[in-house]
Amino acid sequence: MNAIAKTVGARVSVLDVGVAHELEQHALLRTAKVRRGTDDLSRGPAMSREVAARAVMAGAGVAEELVESGGVDLLVTGDMGIGNTTPAACLTSTFTGCPPGDTTGRGTGIDDETLKLKVSVVEDALELHAPDPEDPLGVLAVIGGLEHAAIVGVILTSAVYGVPVILDGVVSNSAALVAHALAPRALGYIIAGHRSAEPGARIALDHLGLEPLLDLDMRLGEGTGGLLAVPLVQAAARMLAEMTRLEEIGFG
Amino acid sequence: MNAIAKTVGARVSVLDVGVAHELEQHALLRTAKVRRGTDDLSRGPAMSREVAARAVMAGAGVAEELVESGGVDLLVTGDMGIGNTTPAACLTSTFTGCPPGDTTGRGTGIDDETLKLKVSVVEDALELHAPDPEDPLGVLAVIGGLEHAAIVGVILTSAVYGVPVILDGVVSNSAALVAHALAPRALGYIIAGHRSAEPGARIALDHLGLEPLLDLDMRLGEGTGGLLAVPLVQAAARMLAEMTRLEEIGFG
Repeated sequence: MNAIAKTVGARVSVLDVGVAHELEQHALLRTAKVRRGTDDLSRGPAMSREVAARAVMAGAGVAEELVESGGVDLLVTGDMGIGNTTPAACLTSTFTGCPPGDTTGRGTGIDDETLKLKVSVVEDALELHAPDPEDPLGVLAVIGGLEHAAIVGVILTSAVYGVPVILDGVVSNSAALVAHALAPRALGYIIAGHRSAEPGARIALDHLGLEPLLDLDMRLGEGTGGLLAVPLVQAAARMLAEMTRLEEIGFG
Repeated sequence: MNAIAKTVGARVSVLDVGVAHELEQHALLRTAKVRRGTDDLSRGPAMSREVAARAVMAGAGVAEELVESGGVDLLVTGDMGIGNTTPAACLTSTFTGCPPGDTTGRGTGIDDETLKLKVSVVEDALELHAPDPEDPLGVLAVIGGLEHAAIVGVILTSAVYGVPVILDGVVSNSAALVAHALAPRALGYIIAGHRSAEPGARIALDHLGLEPLLDLDMRLGEGTGGLLAVPLVQAAARMLAEMTRLEEIGFG
């Protein structure tokens, strides 16, 4: 992700919103730890509504600071989190109505047996919590992750400031479903950076009506797919801003 | 194209290999005019073998100069030429065996009636010249364009120097078919930048076994689609060169 960020001239900000141990300080690391990891969504709610809201606000806070003070006019989401394609599948099934067998993927590369177990975990979680898509924050609390919540905050903030946000893969796509459910007009600021190889990614983007810029069979997360789309967005903006239109020179 | 080149940090070189009138001088313009346009391929050979070979050498010369003296380590093809999707369709049908009805597209946006005429022009040209794919230079001479020939030279030179070349759209794709027929191993240095909306583009790339990096429904030519792929290639190179592999830090 850092190699790609260097290539496209992007600045990296890492937000610790819920790593389950203390991280060493680092120039790029911001800390807004809401709690040390979530609870197990297969046994009970992943977190309380209040914690979910605080994680959303943590993401929003970073985005706000970047836009307000850093001259940032384009945001890219990304995530690191162990097991976070499971809550992504839960969120995607909840907001799109697609069954867990369709929205659940292999994540970091699990085998067939483990994939079956993962699908059943998602199915059981949806049965246990019966998440109500009309209550997006409630959904995020019971079956979401802290990183999903923080990305929701980044997306909503991009819409508030009118700054476009490029989504990375399946975790960001599922967070976009939550953001869209909370504030449908946020969709106008969302750009799908790429279509992750995770099956839930395509389902989430289709539901939002977003056509991804790239489709390179990538599945790493961390913002890699979103960052690769940055030059495409920059080129499009530059063309709109700098090019003479054919009508202006007497054609068409 | 210039707006995109600025975005991706590429240098633009324009080679006049056969414009049918004299161009004003310009800092970016190189002149290696082989002749003033081609002849009408619907009536006879577009050019002689000798002219085709000189156009190939003109493209090769620019590529060689850029790589030898300019520190260039990545080439991108592009073209401007009126009516040049017709020879592209002729070349693509010749080397892939696909009928003109499949390889011929709307170019700058012709209507149904004109498309029918264009398909019949391609069909008639193939019947008139019976181009032999075993004689790639001969094919280029009878049904190619000067820009197609120059791009063949750029592609072959990239292979000679081991410098990758990113193809733009359908004109470059059809030139790649010629380059591949002349020197199959050149394929190892060719990267398909994007899949043009022109139907022949997909057919040519499939024939070469090249998977395009972008598929954005673009059809402008001029190198626009190839240039947009530059950051993807740079990011890939940087990842290979700079990233620590998981094995190196004790994983996997």
